[in-house]
Amino acid sequence: MEDCIFCKIVDGKIPAEKVYEDDKVISFLDIMPANKGHCLIVPKRHAANLMEMDEDDLISTIKAAKKVARALSLSFGNGSFNIVMNNGKEAGQLVNHAHIHIIPRFKKDRLRLSWSHLKYEENEIKEYAEKIKKFI
Amino acid sequence: MEDCIFCKIVDGKIPAEKVYEDDKVISFLDIMPANKGHCLIVPKRHAANLMEMDEDDLISTIKAAKKVARALSLSFGNGSFNIVMNNGKEAGQLVNHAHIHIIPRFKKDRLRLSWSHLKYEENEIKEYAEKIKKFI
Repeated sequence: MEDCIFCKIVDGKIPAEKVYEDDKVISFLDIMPANKGHCLIVPKRHAANLMEMDEDDLISTIKAAKKVARALSLSFGNGSFNIVMNNGKEAGQLVNHAHIHIIPRFKKDRLRLSWSHLKYEENEIKEYAEKIKKFI
Repeated sequence: MEDCIFCKIVDGKIPAEKVYEDDKVISFLDIMPANKGHCLIVPKRHAANLMEMDEDDLISTIKAAKKVARALSLSFGNGSFNIVMNNGKEAGQLVNHAHIHIIPRFKKDRLRLSWSHLKYEENEIKEYAEKIKKFI
């Protein structure tokens, strides 16, 4: 897709520090890492987000994510990492080409990816479940 | 696995507000949500984390994640959501049974799942890429 920075990386028009590539997927180091070693997994075929990815690309992408996470852990990590995929503007998606972040984690890093917990009112959780189930 | 809260939910020994189930995967609402509607996707077969999941369970889990994310968006979301999978203590994994969070996002929610960016020194990013590629 024209004007998509990740499509340009896939096409080799913009350089990136690749760590993995197959016919469906490319993985490279994020140049603005949350922790050093932070990799992105990107399906080669343009899709704006998870919803637009076809099944083949989704499966290839998650398999590549596992492969890269394993390599990250073996090369300098301790086996701890976050997998994050932001979908949509409100979720903080910055590049509109689907991608998965793999962020290696260390004992005393400064990263805070946790959240505070909300509470459901009585029965509210059941109402949410019913609403969601209607669309499954 | 004994003493695993998610195995107990899978076995029906602990109740949960299920939204989806198939032969490999179960999905239910997180009782301590980051935003209301926050769902967990859990492979039925016990695996501590992504690395321990076999390929079948991994594929079933990511396909279920897409299905539930779609239903979440259609029922009350706006199509924005985070997918988060914490692997290991340093990554904030609280239950040692692999699981994916799907967190619906809204324009003015208070959730902050972003991170500040570190910088690589000159050539350092290449060194990281070389190290990772050795283990791919």
